[in-house]
Amino acid sequence: MEAKEFKEFAKAMTDYVADYLENIRDRPVVPSVQPGYLRPLVPEQAPEKAEPWTAVMADIERVVMSGVTHWHSPRFHAYFPTAQSYPAIVADMLSGAIACIGFTWIASPACTELEVVMLDWLGQMLGLPEEFLSRSGGEGGGVIQGTASEATLVALLGAKTRMLHRVKEQHPEWTDNDIIPKLVGYCNKQAHSSVERAGLLGGVQLRTLKPDNKRRLRGDILKEAIEKDIADGLIPFYVVATLGTTSSCTFDDLEELGDVCNEHGLWMHVDAAYAGSSFICPEYRYLMKGIEKAESFNFNPHKWMLVNFDCSAMWLKQPRWIIDAFNVDPLYLKHDHQGSAPDYRHWQIPLGRRFRALKLWFVLRLYGIENLQKHIRNHIALAHLFEKLCLSDDRFELFEEVTMGLVCFRLKGDNEINEALLRRINGRGKIHLVPSKIDDVYFLRLAICSRFTEEKDIHFSWEEVKASADEVLAKN
Amino acid sequence: MEAKEFKEFAKAMTDYVADYLENIRDRPVVPSVQPGYLRPLVPEQAPEKAEPWTAVMADIERVVMSGVTHWHSPRFHAYFPTAQSYPAIVADMLSGAIACIGFTWIASPACTELEVVMLDWLGQMLGLPEEFLSRSGGEGGGVIQGTASEATLVALLGAKTRMLHRVKEQHPEWTDNDIIPKLVGYCNKQAHSSVERAGLLGGVQLRTLKPDNKRRLRGDILKEAIEKDIADGLIPFYVVATLGTTSSCTFDDLEELGDVCNEHGLWMHVDAAYAGSSFICPEYRYLMKGIEKAESFNFNPHKWMLVNFDCSAMWLKQPRWIIDAFNVDPLYLKHDHQGSAPDYRHWQIPLGRRFRALKLWFVLRLYGIENLQKHIRNHIALAHLFEKLCLSDDRFELFEEVTMGLVCFRLKGDNEINEALLRRINGRGKIHLVPSKIDDVYFLRLAICSRFTEEKDIHFSWEEVKASADEVLAKN
Repeated sequence: MEAKEFKEFAKAMTDYVADYLENIRDRPVVPSVQPGYLRPLVPEQAPEKAEPWTAVMADIERVVMSGVTHWHSPRFHAYFPTAQSYPAIVADMLSGAIACIGFTWIASPACTELEVVMLDWLGQMLGLPEEFLSRSGGEGGGVIQGTASEATLVALLGAKTRMLHRVKEQHPEWTDNDIIPKLVGYCNKQAHSSVERAGLLGGVQLRTLKPDNKRRLRGDILKEAIEKDIADGLIPFYVVATLGTTSSCTFDDLEELGDVCNEHGLWMHVDAAYAGSSFICPEYRYLMKGIEKAESFNFNPHKWMLVNFDCSAMWLKQPRWIIDAFNVDPLYLKHDHQGSAPDYRHWQIPLGRRFRALKLWFVLRLYGIENLQKHIRNHIALAHLFEKLCLSDDRFELFEEVTMGLVCFRLKGDNEINEALLRRINGRGKIHLVPSKIDDVYFLRLAICSRFTEEKDIHFSWEEVKASADEVLAKN
Repeated sequence: MEAKEFKEFAKAMTDYVADYLENIRDRPVVPSVQPGYLRPLVPEQAPEKAEPWTAVMADIERVVMSGVTHWHSPRFHAYFPTAQSYPAIVADMLSGAIACIGFTWIASPACTELEVVMLDWLGQMLGLPEEFLSRSGGEGGGVIQGTASEATLVALLGAKTRMLHRVKEQHPEWTDNDIIPKLVGYCNKQAHSSVERAGLLGGVQLRTLKPDNKRRLRGDILKEAIEKDIADGLIPFYVVATLGTTSSCTFDDLEELGDVCNEHGLWMHVDAAYAGSSFICPEYRYLMKGIEKAESFNFNPHKWMLVNFDCSAMWLKQPRWIIDAFNVDPLYLKHDHQGSAPDYRHWQIPLGRRFRALKLWFVLRLYGIENLQKHIRNHIALAHLFEKLCLSDDRFELFEEVTMGLVCFRLKGDNEINEALLRRINGRGKIHLVPSKIDDVYFLRLAICSRFTEEKDIHFSWEEVKASADEVLAKN
């Protein structure tokens, strides 16, 4: 494909994309296809000869869109939001053209340096302690990871390295194989599944702790678990505190957990994957009180801050533990400026990395802090609107207090009726939700996901929920 | 940003991108900036108010391009190529607009299904055995990973799960903690640094073996290591065979290694990150003879097959070992179609995943197999041209036979003179190379990287090398 066709194609795609997004509300939010739908729609093999771009363009609706779940429809309320915005799409075009692999500083200085500065901008927007920022002149700094799962794993590996180092100082005769089976980490039972997985991947025990009756992990619960494990000869080393759990968006008590971690020398990692974006609004920062006690902090601008996936922002006070855990340094990656700027390959699981800071830069400048705050506040207000509608119907109850853009609700009654309700809602095909279950109580989660969502959409979704409830209850 | 401004911005960016790439040859390949160059060029904080897109556009040259290493310049010969093409850039726009997170089938059926079919297309293009393909109707299939590093780690974790399972069948009283410290994997000493790192991450020993005098890992070397380790009470479980090492692009002997692995029940993973793309040309498939003996195979279309990063293609005969290693299944990710289509979250380290199959689809259709083969053959021919120029000057020698698009060469003489040569070449700033060292012999690597490279560029690069040699030798 030559530049001339690229220009035609990219401009046609620009119009298609704008048209898709501006009219996304009119599409069925979840496709009605069955597994295996796509294979018969395309040839069995790649074409021998080049096709014109118009042929590809003509297939997008038929092959792709017919099987897409439209995450950016205002009628999509499943999981948590994933971000998408026009500035991020354009930034990715530039990133795709430069297409550098920023594993070292010299491999593309702009790629590393814009990331360092953007993580400083972002950290300041959230009010993170200076110790986490590169501008402080200390060791701390931020990095873009692919996902919160990777950040949790990276922090776990850093914590593991640090504890191995400490234990060996006290017991020089102990080997890794003596120590690692004794290591134990902790998280809220309601922490994301990726925390458990980080334990599996990192080869250490991770204990899930039962939170208090408001689903918050508290200091005394953690303290008790740590003391019991120490008494049993284990070595507590890592805690993941969650700000905004996936199931019901509750917040662990950082202040309390941080004190316990500091007392016992544990690494506290804060996973604020979804809710972290709200901290750009000062009125929500009370939820991260105690953050200065953490060793690492992570949230996903690619969830709720209009930066397309993947862009998971992570800050570390002492990146050296990660760098030491991963450091393998072949000659072909060495360069003259080592040490004077971060070589981000040491901060992450993969070696290669895209120029993702461009997306952050474009989004921060083209929205401005003001409009990003407006986006967050709007989503939270819409969640409260749905909450109000829900509470105005006495067949319904809330499962959890609404703090962010998630409403956890259910029909008063048993789980079966709520399972039937969800089946009916999703079966009608107008809106899309997923359920959750805590302590054997099944409930529905309605997340505000789309940047296009307006009050009228919330009324529409509520009408769908209500009509589904009418049908389900009439049957009983 | 509204749709109207997006259209203006995206179209302006389209023109900028085409202009950048079509004239990339004229830019200095490596920027002359020093660490810390960027911070003074931008404000200390994100803007409070939205800026117009024209302000961002105006800053791209000043802030970004002034610090970019131009990987797609025909004068960039460092590392290995990373891919970039117009069709992939346009595909990423569409992926950015759909912006679904394809962790389960239902989360966007098209995202999963196009990936299944594209990996079948690609597998057929390479002549992979049917057992690796989903179309065979068996268990096997392909998946897009972010990087080869992740593929190596995923395969290692699968191999670990399989061996734990087997050992526990024989010794039901043994725990993970009894077995894991005994596990040992193997690779060529010349394998990529990410293999060693996968061992660190996966918490198992990974032994690097000295290859034969052609830098190839051979069956007898592996056999000897395995037998010694078994005699010492260890449990060999995993081998990474490299097709196209990073240092000098040599190829392990798959046939021999595969036989040894099968005899001893080890999982053979094949890392063909760079060279794998060449197997779309039948004349290079002799290099992957024995592939049917592998459990998993990986190569990076994002290196040499014109699909932008990230797109690392991996095939597994028995994905169940990976799925079982990672499976954590919360209610909010369950859906009615589990089992009838892959839920790719179980096949990878992160949970979230972008719609990356679109890039493959666009590139395969808009180039066609024919033009992709032409691209590979052209790069290899250009490497042979440089080889010829090099051999025509009797001050130079080759360090390694040229098989793909990499030429490993040096001045006859000691390492110091070659280190001086590299400093001189990179110091002149016209072309960019990185060195390597094997068995204490330092040499220069010239990789053909850009899709814009023509014969005249190779002559230009050769003149630079020759002129640098003149300068260095005159000084001595």
